[in-house]
Amino acid sequence: MTPSPVLEERTRVAIIGAGPSGMLLAHLLAQRGVESVVLESRSEEYVASRIRAGILEQSTVDLLREAGLAGRLDREAQEHRGIYLQWPEERHHLDFVALTGRTVHVYGQTEVQKDLVAARTAAGQRVHYEIGDTALHDLESDHPSVTFTDRAGRARRVAAEVVVGCDGSFGPSRAAVPEAARRTWEKTYPYSWLGILADVAPSTDELIYAWHPDGFAMHSMRSSTVSRLYLQVPNGTDVDDWSDDRIWEALATRLGHGQDGWQLTPGPVTEKSVLPMRSFVQTPMRHGRLFLAGDAGHIVPPTGAKGLNLAVADVGLLAPALAAWLVDGDRRPAEAYAETALRRVWRCTHFSWWMTSMLHTSGDPFDAQLQLSQLRWVASSEAGATGLAENYAGLPIGF
Amino acid sequence: MTPSPVLEERTRVAIIGAGPSGMLLAHLLAQRGVESVVLESRSEEYVASRIRAGILEQSTVDLLREAGLAGRLDREAQEHRGIYLQWPEERHHLDFVALTGRTVHVYGQTEVQKDLVAARTAAGQRVHYEIGDTALHDLESDHPSVTFTDRAGRARRVAAEVVVGCDGSFGPSRAAVPEAARRTWEKTYPYSWLGILADVAPSTDELIYAWHPDGFAMHSMRSSTVSRLYLQVPNGTDVDDWSDDRIWEALATRLGHGQDGWQLTPGPVTEKSVLPMRSFVQTPMRHGRLFLAGDAGHIVPPTGAKGLNLAVADVGLLAPALAAWLVDGDRRPAEAYAETALRRVWRCTHFSWWMTSMLHTSGDPFDAQLQLSQLRWVASSEAGATGLAENYAGLPIGF
Repeated sequence: MTPSPVLEERTRVAIIGAGPSGMLLAHLLAQRGVESVVLESRSEEYVASRIRAGILEQSTVDLLREAGLAGRLDREAQEHRGIYLQWPEERHHLDFVALTGRTVHVYGQTEVQKDLVAARTAAGQRVHYEIGDTALHDLESDHPSVTFTDRAGRARRVAAEVVVGCDGSFGPSRAAVPEAARRTWEKTYPYSWLGILADVAPSTDELIYAWHPDGFAMHSMRSSTVSRLYLQVPNGTDVDDWSDDRIWEALATRLGHGQDGWQLTPGPVTEKSVLPMRSFVQTPMRHGRLFLAGDAGHIVPPTGAKGLNLAVADVGLLAPALAAWLVDGDRRPAEAYAETALRRVWRCTHFSWWMTSMLHTSGDPFDAQLQLSQLRWVASSEAGATGLAENYAGLPIGF
Repeated sequence: MTPSPVLEERTRVAIIGAGPSGMLLAHLLAQRGVESVVLESRSEEYVASRIRAGILEQSTVDLLREAGLAGRLDREAQEHRGIYLQWPEERHHLDFVALTGRTVHVYGQTEVQKDLVAARTAAGQRVHYEIGDTALHDLESDHPSVTFTDRAGRARRVAAEVVVGCDGSFGPSRAAVPEAARRTWEKTYPYSWLGILADVAPSTDELIYAWHPDGFAMHSMRSSTVSRLYLQVPNGTDVDDWSDDRIWEALATRLGHGQDGWQLTPGPVTEKSVLPMRSFVQTPMRHGRLFLAGDAGHIVPPTGAKGLNLAVADVGLLAPALAAWLVDGDRRPAEAYAETALRRVWRCTHFSWWMTSMLHTSGDPFDAQLQLSQLRWVASSEAGATGLAENYAGLPIGF
C-alpha cells in the first residue's frame, strides 16, 4: 500500500487558529495585500459559540473601527464610562472618561467572532476547520510549513513564508518551539470563577466588581437583555453543586442586594460553568519564522478583562510588522515584535494579577485588610483610580 | 516584714515609653495645658542612641515645625524632592514635588529624639527611666494607674486620667488589653535587611531603592558625611558572615556601580546589624482609658519609611483629642481616635507591604517579572508615580 498523496497548498502566512486572533490577523493582513490560510482544529460552530470575554478596551475598538469591522459593534455595543468597585457597605464608580479620556465597550467575544467570520467569508478567506494531526515544520528555515489531516481525512500541507500560532495555550504552535529555545512562567490561583449567562436585564448600568468576605463577585452583561455574572468559588468546584437558587442567593449577598435600595433581579440561567484562573507566559513570542499571538503566548486570569484585548493588541502589532516584511522587505518591525509585544503582555499580566489579588479572598485576615485598604485608596485617590483606569481602558497598541 | 510604702504620684496622662511617640505626645499635651508623666524601661542613653528610621514625610515635618521642634531640623536636615527607583540597566527619578507638591526630609530618628528630649528637659517634663515591673491597672474605670519599680528599686504608682501606650510592640501596654477585647494581624516576610552606617559621603543626592536579581538594596543617608545602606538578606543571617568587603561588593553589584558611570564610594562601617521585616496591627487602638500609639499598635517593614511617620501621625491626632477631652470636656475626638488612626495605619501597612513586595526578590521567576513590570509602570506612568509619591511623601494627619 502506498501512502496517499499529500495535497499541497501555498500561502504567504499560515495562521493556526480561527478564533478572534487568527481571523483578525487574516483580515488585517489581507488589507495590507498579504494572503493567508487559516487552520482550525475545532468546527466553525464551536469556535463561533465559545463563551469568552465581553469587554473591549478603547484600543481594541479603535482597531476594529480602522479595520472596517465595527459596523455592528457601533450599533449594538454598550459604551461604558467606567466600572463600579465595591466592598461591604460601599460602592464607588470609577469614571474612566474623567480619569483617562477613554471608555470600554460591552460586546461579547462571540459577537466579535461573528463579525470577523462574516468579513472573512465575504472576502473569500481560505479556512480549514476540523483539522487533525497539525504539525509545524522547518520553522528555522525560509520555508516553514504546516501539515495536517483535513476533515475528510486527507493529508494536507500548507507551505508558507511565515507561520503564526493563534491556537491558544493548548495548541501545537507554542509547543513547536524547541524546549531549549523557550521559557515559560506560570501562576495558578487557589480559586475559580463560577460564571452564568442569564436572560434578564442587567441590574446595573456598568460592571460591578465586588469584594466580599464570602469571595469575589462580579455583575457583567452581554446586552440590555442578557446578564453575565460570576462568583469566586474554590478550585475543583462541581457546577452541579450550585443550583440556580444558590447562585442567585450568593450573588445577592456578595453584590449587596438591598444595600442603599439596590436590587439584584434574578432570571433564567442559560449557561453555567466553572472557569479556572491562570497566568501563563511563554517567551520568546517569535522562533524563526513562527510568531505567537494571543493565548498561544500568554493567558491571564479573567479579572480585568485583558485576554481578548491583549490578543487584539498582539495582532494589531504583528499584522503591519509582517506586511512590512512580506510586502516591503523591511524585517525590522517583525524582528522587534517579540520584544515590543512582551512589554504589553507583562503589563497586562501584572494588571490582571493585581486586580485578581485585590478582589479575591484568600482566607488570610491580614490579606483581607490589605485588600480593603487598597480598595479604599483606589476609590479615593485620583492617582489610584487613574492607575486602575488607564490599565483597564487600555494603553495604545504598540506601547 | 511589712511591704515598703508605695510612692504615689498624680498626673493627667501617664505615657508609657520615652521614644519619639511618647516624648512628642508629652510635648504636644503640654502645649495644650495637659501635664503628663513619662515612664520608660530603658535608660535615657539607650533610647537616645537607638538607630532607627531616617526619613520624615511632609506632614511629620509640618507637625514638628508647628510644635516648635524643628529649629535644628530646618538647619541640618536635607530636603529631598523624591527618590530613585532602579532595576538592572535603569534608574528613574520620581520627583515628589512635581507629582504631589510634597517633599521628604532626611533627619535621623536619633536627631528627632535629641530635639524632643532637649525640649522636654527644658520644660521640666517628669520622666522615669530604667523602670521595671510596669503594670497597667483599672483601664476600664475612670481612675487608671500604672505601677512600677523605679531605678532605685522603690515601688511607685502613677494615678492618671488617661494612660497612653507608646512602648512598642514588646511593651506592656498593648498586652494590657484583655485578649477577648483585642485582635491582632501579623505578617512576616521571608527576608531581612542587613543595614550599615558608614562614615562616607553618600554616593547619591537622594535615596536609591534598587531591585536586583540578587535581592533588594538601598542607598540612604543620615547627613552629608554619613551613609546608611541596606541589603536584602535571608532570615537568620548572621551579621558576622558579612565582612565589610563583602557588604560593599554586594552593594556595588545591586546598586549598579559602573552603570552609566555611577560610582559607589565605600567607607568605614561604624554600625552593622540585621533588621527583621514584619507587619503587625493590633486593634482597637483604645481600650477604656488606655490609648495605643506608634509601634505599640502597629509595626511596618522599613521599606517606604513609614514607621516613625505613622507614630507621629498617631500622636498628632491623639494629642488634640485628649486635650479636647481633658481641657474642654469634649470626648468625641478621643472616642473617634481609634477608628480615625486605624485608617492611616492600614493605608501605611498596605503601602509598606506593597513597596516591600515590589522590591524584594522571592526566588519565584514569575514574581520577578511582575515586579519588573510594576516598576516599569510606576516609573513611566504619571498615575503610577503619583500613587507611590503621595503615599511616600505622606498624607495630611487626620486623613
